[in-house]
Amino acid sequence: MANFELLSRLLHDSGGKILLLVMDGLGGLPRTSDGLTELETAHTPNMDRLAREGSTGLTIPVARGIAPGSGPAHLALFGYDPLHYEIGRGVLEATGIGLEVNPGDVAIRGNFCTVDGEGRITDRRAGRINSEEGAKRVALLKQIRIPGVELIVEAVQDYRFALMLRGEGLNGAIADTDPQITGVPPLPARALDPAAERTAALVNQWIAEAAKVLKGHEPANMVTLRGFAMDPALPKYSEVYKLKAACVAVYPMYKGVARLVGMDIIPTDSHDGPGDEFKRVADIWKDYDFVFCHIKYTDSRGEDGDFDAKVKVIESVDAALPILLDMQPDVVIITGDHSTPATMKSHSWHPVPTLLWAPKTHMPDRAQTYGERECMGGALGQFPASELMQLALAHANRLAKYGA
Amino acid sequence: MANFELLSRLLHDSGGKILLLVMDGLGGLPRTSDGLTELETAHTPNMDRLAREGSTGLTIPVARGIAPGSGPAHLALFGYDPLHYEIGRGVLEATGIGLEVNPGDVAIRGNFCTVDGEGRITDRRAGRINSEEGAKRVALLKQIRIPGVELIVEAVQDYRFALMLRGEGLNGAIADTDPQITGVPPLPARALDPAAERTAALVNQWIAEAAKVLKGHEPANMVTLRGFAMDPALPKYSEVYKLKAACVAVYPMYKGVARLVGMDIIPTDSHDGPGDEFKRVADIWKDYDFVFCHIKYTDSRGEDGDFDAKVKVIESVDAALPILLDMQPDVVIITGDHSTPATMKSHSWHPVPTLLWAPKTHMPDRAQTYGERECMGGALGQFPASELMQLALAHANRLAKYGA
Repeated sequence: MANFELLSRLLHDSGGKILLLVMDGLGGLPRTSDGLTELETAHTPNMDRLAREGSTGLTIPVARGIAPGSGPAHLALFGYDPLHYEIGRGVLEATGIGLEVNPGDVAIRGNFCTVDGEGRITDRRAGRINSEEGAKRVALLKQIRIPGVELIVEAVQDYRFALMLRGEGLNGAIADTDPQITGVPPLPARALDPAAERTAALVNQWIAEAAKVLKGHEPANMVTLRGFAMDPALPKYSEVYKLKAACVAVYPMYKGVARLVGMDIIPTDSHDGPGDEFKRVADIWKDYDFVFCHIKYTDSRGEDGDFDAKVKVIESVDAALPILLDMQPDVVIITGDHSTPATMKSHSWHPVPTLLWAPKTHMPDRAQTYGERECMGGALGQFPASELMQLALAHANRLAKYGA
Repeated sequence: MANFELLSRLLHDSGGKILLLVMDGLGGLPRTSDGLTELETAHTPNMDRLAREGSTGLTIPVARGIAPGSGPAHLALFGYDPLHYEIGRGVLEATGIGLEVNPGDVAIRGNFCTVDGEGRITDRRAGRINSEEGAKRVALLKQIRIPGVELIVEAVQDYRFALMLRGEGLNGAIADTDPQITGVPPLPARALDPAAERTAALVNQWIAEAAKVLKGHEPANMVTLRGFAMDPALPKYSEVYKLKAACVAVYPMYKGVARLVGMDIIPTDSHDGPGDEFKRVADIWKDYDFVFCHIKYTDSRGEDGDFDAKVKVIESVDAALPILLDMQPDVVIITGDHSTPATMKSHSWHPVPTLLWAPKTHMPDRAQTYGERECMGGALGQFPASELMQLALAHANRLAKYGA
């Protein structure tokens, strides 16, 4: 990961501007051994030019062979070792729907479930009710008040919701209430640390109220709670990199992770593909040292297993790229957070094609186009994604020499 | 870095002989994206043959994106993690002018400054007096005697000098006396650790005497002291590698670092380029297991921004190379300590082309010439410079198998 202690000794207060463009799940695989990947198939004249002029390589998101979720994968791109800095599931769920998790808040994943007359769970997912039914129950949960603590509850999807407790002296060291089996009642919230006793008591009060308001609303007449977590207290971009940083992303989850590292979240509506997001980047470019721009649909089409549709998303990004290049950034990094090969319909561990273009400082290599195989022989080699930020800072002339 | 504990279990007492040829600041960048680097431009038939026959790769001096000074960069080549083993500034300054820093010595960087009638600093660099003027003041400082401690003072350059205290029970945990601003007097030497109280008192006595002898010698009528440091107590080559090692270098700084790792320093005068140094290597080759030979001017010409002159230095090294190859070394490593692209006129973080030729054990790769782009696809990959010594020992058949 980025060596924050070392960087603190070497960072200049100023330097070039950095653009980090992440196409989620960019990396892919060919459909046949002699075929091309999604990125290699796509017609990408703009990215090909950047690859031809600049440096290429492959990034390893978390560790060799480990397919990451988007949370850890983005932490790595931001320079944080995702094995060291874990974002608890409750915080991911909450940030994922756009809730702001502040220091001291306890964030929790909630499931609706079905209990019988004796309070024993008969269905851990409440018959997998849909989002509309889930939202009706969440409206009931929103009515609950517990003295001494602010309660925030929002629907996530289907039978899932997020719960946050906000107030003084809260502690998230609490065990899941989901017993993971049916035929028994949900467990009470139990403190894993004496410091969490009071929080556990508050949670148990809330659970008792939830049981009351949900009574008769079968099949979702009870809740289980999991993944109790607090703000991971990630060091912020302004501290560790001396960068004024902004995030342009459409999906709440990515805004959430960016907010946790101290980026400003730029309100963005995308109706017309990458161009809308890129225009937002251009709008705010003059005000920031670093902008992270996130494209979701490469991953979505990979997850769908739709190779051709993923190719088209990549091509639409390339077609809109001049909007970003016209800003004349000093450093442009184009990469993915992980691979999502359409052939696998899932995130994978394959190293991610990475392109670094910084015309005053980059080392050109022999890549002629932007694609997995071209990147394999590139100037950057194959390296941990969490070291990318150091390269970005160096190429932006933001680091002094180490030692005499 | 080299795994000293592991090596201690695997090292043979004998094996092949290793030559480490370091061209300072060897790595470069092309002047245009479609151009060649300094090393790629240079006509180097001898090194090209070694690259064609042997293994190539790229070394990362300290960490990705970190441009190192020559001190840390050489420590890495010698197998020591430069983030773990730091050589204090005072020690670098002293060894840089050829002073031998022994265990127990305290080495300090000194600046001449100008003070007014009230003792307040009016110029922190004494009007940047030249080396001749500096030497006159150093002659005055040499007269100072303090009971209980040996004092060594030598001019460095312009307004800079080095001071060493030698004696029993000294301690270097002392804060700088340079207040970093004008309008105030120099700070007294202040112990950062109770164990350094006596040393700080001795330093303050010396400062008081320095003020007396410099009085009236404006603009350099006072001193400030910085970078108090002691011998970093680096494990020695004879211990960690079981190698009898020598250094052939022209510049004191490199001799200094080599001395700190236990190499014998071979007196060398170079008047006629690399050939002179290479003849010195040949003279002593039979007496050593390992010789480090340092070429300075690749870095100097890179720092000058003189691309063509750097090319010429590389060509002169190649032309003289047969002197070294005629010794029939078992392992030849040719690399740089860091990159100094002429286009940047400074040290940079770019990985350094590295060539390892050991005809009995090397893995030939596809490199046809010695250059950055050829090295990108080489047998050694891209790896930390501090792991190079392990490769050298292995290729010299000096390491037993690990485990059964």
